[in-house]
Amino acid sequence: MKKAVVLLSGGMDSAVTLYMAMRRYECSALIFDYGQKAVKELECAETLCRDASVRYHVMKIDMPWKGSALLDEATEIPGGDISAGADIPVTYVPSRNIIFLSFASSFAESIGAGAVCIGAHQLDYSNYPDCRSDFFDSYRETLRLGTRQGVQGNPVKIVTPVIDMSKREIILKGAELGVPFEKTWSCYARGQHPCGKCESCLLRARAFEQAGIEDPLLNN
Amino acid sequence: MKKAVVLLSGGMDSAVTLYMAMRRYECSALIFDYGQKAVKELECAETLCRDASVRYHVMKIDMPWKGSALLDEATEIPGGDISAGADIPVTYVPSRNIIFLSFASSFAESIGAGAVCIGAHQLDYSNYPDCRSDFFDSYRETLRLGTRQGVQGNPVKIVTPVIDMSKREIILKGAELGVPFEKTWSCYARGQHPCGKCESCLLRARAFEQAGIEDPLLNN
Repeated sequence: MKKAVVLLSGGMDSAVTLYMAMRRYECSALIFDYGQKAVKELECAETLCRDASVRYHVMKIDMPWKGSALLDEATEIPGGDISAGADIPVTYVPSRNIIFLSFASSFAESIGAGAVCIGAHQLDYSNYPDCRSDFFDSYRETLRLGTRQGVQGNPVKIVTPVIDMSKREIILKGAELGVPFEKTWSCYARGQHPCGKCESCLLRARAFEQAGIEDPLLNN
Repeated sequence: MKKAVVLLSGGMDSAVTLYMAMRRYECSALIFDYGQKAVKELECAETLCRDASVRYHVMKIDMPWKGSALLDEATEIPGGDISAGADIPVTYVPSRNIIFLSFASSFAESIGAGAVCIGAHQLDYSNYPDCRSDFFDSYRETLRLGTRQGVQGNPVKIVTPVIDMSKREIILKGAELGVPFEKTWSCYARGQHPCGKCESCLLRARAFEQAGIEDPLLNN
């Protein structure tokens, strides 16, 4: 079985991505502790891996620069607005996926894994530019030109299996694969229970409703 | 004066890049402690900043994956061969510049700096793919598509002022700008004195010879 590195945040999208990847690859998960307020998502990510018997590594990154509401205690996580605006919200972290992908592709190349899987999707999402197809295409080209495997004609593949799925479809796919959604975490805030108000909580609630499934996290 | 983030390794190329950048920008240096054997280069990088009164941040990154001779104690730093081979040497660290650029561009965006300066050059170098113009062009496109400043039409600029200079020209430029070369470090090995045998030592020695200047580090 070929190896892959899976970027795992502990959220629903990356959990479903992990379960999809497990069917094709021998997976190693990479989890980032980058100072996010949502420390609970880290716990969930580790639990998901132990549950699925997936090897994982938690990478601690000290990002001293602030500004994002996800990181900065001085900036409050805002109440969500999922009415399809075009603005990039204050929860945006500059270059976050670029940083995560860079480590993951470095890790992949060093362990001889041919792929990095990431659970980004560009339909009902927070409008982050580093979740869109055109960004991933450009990043693939960057790896093709900037890495040994790339110049040898065999760059690490960036696999985005849920990129064009709606959150509803992601949930249905996860349900089919047996993803334990009660062990996933979406809320942006620091807390032991989802705040129910941030954008990520609202997107999750709407998606479970659309999927006709009760969110098991809420009864946990 | 506009702000820029300068990637500083402590080597000659990044030191000259810093001095070039200081003429155009208010600089913040970013230094990476990523487990390199050449701990002396970190000392040099900090000394260069203090000397030039440049603000700096040392970012510690725990790269648990091994394989590169620059990081891995199990892999010896090889004797250098600067006879223009096409192979990528064992000192290659997968995605290193992608990782460094990702942090630097994130940092830049968070402090409102419009540029990241990096001292890569593609003439007499170690043949690393992430030092070449085509890689940087692709990375620029990745930032244009994957960041807030990018989609707003104003991506962080990746400035590579020495990319097409020979090492000899870099030294002459540095001499003109008053770069204290005795406080720079090129050797790949762990040690308080340059080994004189690795590729980086050989490239440095040849360049000083070609420039007709004595390397002040060797009499330090």
